[in-house]
Amino acid sequence: MKLTIATSVLKEFFSIVETLATELRLHIDSDKIWYRTVDAANVAMAYSELSSEAFTVYDIGEPSSICIDLTKFRNVFQMKGAEITIESVNEAQIIIYCGGYDYKLALLNDATVKKDPGMPSLELPGEITINGGIIGDILKIVGISSDKPRFILDTSGLRIFTKDIDEVGRTIKPDEAIKMSGTGNSMFSIDYLKEAARAWGNSEITIQIGNDFPIIVSYQITRGKSMFLLAPRIEET
Amino acid sequence: MKLTIATSVLKEFFSIVETLATELRLHIDSDKIWYRTVDAANVAMAYSELSSEAFTVYDIGEPSSICIDLTKFRNVFQMKGAEITIESVNEAQIIIYCGGYDYKLALLNDATVKKDPGMPSLELPGEITINGGIIGDILKIVGISSDKPRFILDTSGLRIFTKDIDEVGRTIKPDEAIKMSGTGNSMFSIDYLKEAARAWGNSEITIQIGNDFPIIVSYQITRGKSMFLLAPRIEET
Amino acid sequence: MKLTIATSVLKEFFSIVETLATELRLHIDSDKIWYRTVDAANVAMAYSELSSEAFTVYDIGEPSSICIDLTKFRNVFQMKGAEITIESVNEAQIIIYCGGYDYKLALLNDATVKKDPGMPSLELPGEITINGGIIGDILKIVGISSDKPRFILDTSGLRIFTKDIDEVGRTIKPDEAIKMSGTGNSMFSIDYLKEAARAWGNSEITIQIGNDFPIIVSYQITRGKSMFLLAPRIEET
Repeated sequence: MKLTIATSVLKEFFSIVETLATELRLHIDSDKIWYRTVDAANVAMAYSELSSEAFTVYDIGEPSSICIDLTKFRNVFQMKGAEITIESVNEAQIIIYCGGYDYKLALLNDATVKKDPGMPSLELPGEITINGGIIGDILKIVGISSDKPRFILDTSGLRIFTKDIDEVGRTIKPDEAIKMSGTGNSMFSIDYLKEAARAWGNSEITIQIGNDFPIIVSYQITRGKSMFLLAPRIEET
Repeated sequence: MKLTIATSVLKEFFSIVETLATELRLHIDSDKIWYRTVDAANVAMAYSELSSEAFTVYDIGEPSSICIDLTKFRNVFQMKGAEITIESVNEAQIIIYCGGYDYKLALLNDATVKKDPGMPSLELPGEITINGGIIGDILKIVGISSDKPRFILDTSGLRIFTKDIDEVGRTIKPDEAIKMSGTGNSMFSIDYLKEAARAWGNSEITIQIGNDFPIIVSYQITRGKSMFLLAPRIEET
Repeated sequence: MKLTIATSVLKEFFSIVETLATELRLHIDSDKIWYRTVDAANVAMAYSELSSEAFTVYDIGEPSSICIDLTKFRNVFQMKGAEITIESVNEAQIIIYCGGYDYKLALLNDATVKKDPGMPSLELPGEITINGGIIGDILKIVGISSDKPRFILDTSGLRIFTKDIDEVGRTIKPDEAIKMSGTGNSMFSIDYLKEAARAWGNSEITIQIGNDFPIIVSYQITRGKSMFLLAPRIEET
């Protein structure tokens, strides 16, 4: 196996899983590479895929999967090379070239890495397409009151707010969004959302929500796409 | 009550009390809003007033006072709105609008917030008017030797210094100041002064000092003024 | 004694010893000032000298040495003056003038400060002259795998790498260096090297290495020179 790709593109591909997992099973198929994983608490799921067209060299031999220590792998992004080349050395090791450095990295044993989760099939009644930076900014502010923002979507807009003794929130009017339709009302843990918002940055994102159902955020990355799913916090009554 | 004001002006108004108090009684009179408070240790006092002319909307009904949690209130300054509107909801709650956000904030019970201190009447024999940045810079340096700088004013200038085994100081010559007159000799805790210096920044400040007496620093803010008073440290002999 | 010098030049002179020692014996000779010291663990040695020509005033009286508290002395570099003047007050005290400040500093008792180490005479078979920034960058990266980089010099270049389960390294080809000759193979503690690399920055440095022998790095400073010597880590077998 030998793969060569622009460093910035590979970094984008791993961005959504950055703080979610430290070990990752990376699937290398004939037309794309991809991963799907959940965090240790089984609350959030991240998925990314990157087309083989994103690579300048895409010599994969047989489709396969490799398990990597993400924390170690990300060291490559400090090497300041414009391109990254990944080659297999043997069953248990890859070598990465970047910025003049060579980095021989032991692979993880497939049996010890958590199985890939299935993708739940959800019919979510609400959908918003919007500049992700707007959501990221709101998450920074609403955290001042509590760490469990509620998202309510109806015809008046998408309201994101937290409430304890005080209440702080912002209502995104329909015309601030690219698209806004349906309804939903769910509460989430803010830390997961803030980390994910750092990954999507100012990308155009599509949010799907329901009533006490997971939120799904999808967006394009260079020659690929990423998806983030977060389970709701259900309020006891 | 409904008050609307430029965010930067309101921020300046609260600047001198920033690290001094977490709870504040804000007086809303027909011609101005103001506060006067002391820190928990009763060592420092801060006063600010802001003319009603600073506001684009100044609809106060009857003069009143409200008690706010300053730490919470200052969250508003992260909302990046150019203007802030404060409205009373009821006796126990205000709502603040800024940057598209709405923030319902519970007021504190007046009975639980420390009574406003009286303003001591002091005749201080020394007075200096100067760019406050000069004092701020000196405070950053003289802290290297001890945390209790002494201020000595006489005809040769204003000397600010600390002394233990070593001695570090700087003498501001009369012609470096806008005005310098009288004499004084007092020692203070540096941390209070450094925090206050961050508030006054490069404003033109007027310092009044005496012999083992408090220091008073006054300066203009946009459409108002701020004052800071700090009790001396008396050296045992 | 009265010495006056540009602040930036004096700062450069002390740079290589910055994190190595807190007390320093400074020799003031007729033609130069200099120090040579080792760290508390006796693993690293730093030497710097500065020609009398670096000074605008160099009035030393008799050659002498003074012992200074480096941590205190370096406070002078925060005073933002372009020039520093050092005068002796008496046997036990100097006064430093910088940026309008005066700083009376107690000297340390010569008897309590560690004796100057001798300079070991070493014949090291490998030598590289190179932009020090290249070495500094490599040290930042190879620390990801372990804290004991090995330097191997042979005709193919200078390889700097760390190895545990993984291996990360970079080989500097002969044509990337200004000069490269001989051979060597030694391992060092990365923290010492990284600190030293901050001191030499992008200066042109000359590295001498051997086989399980110390590394010596020498470079010019403004009107003087600095030298850094670090003992090797010997691997148990």
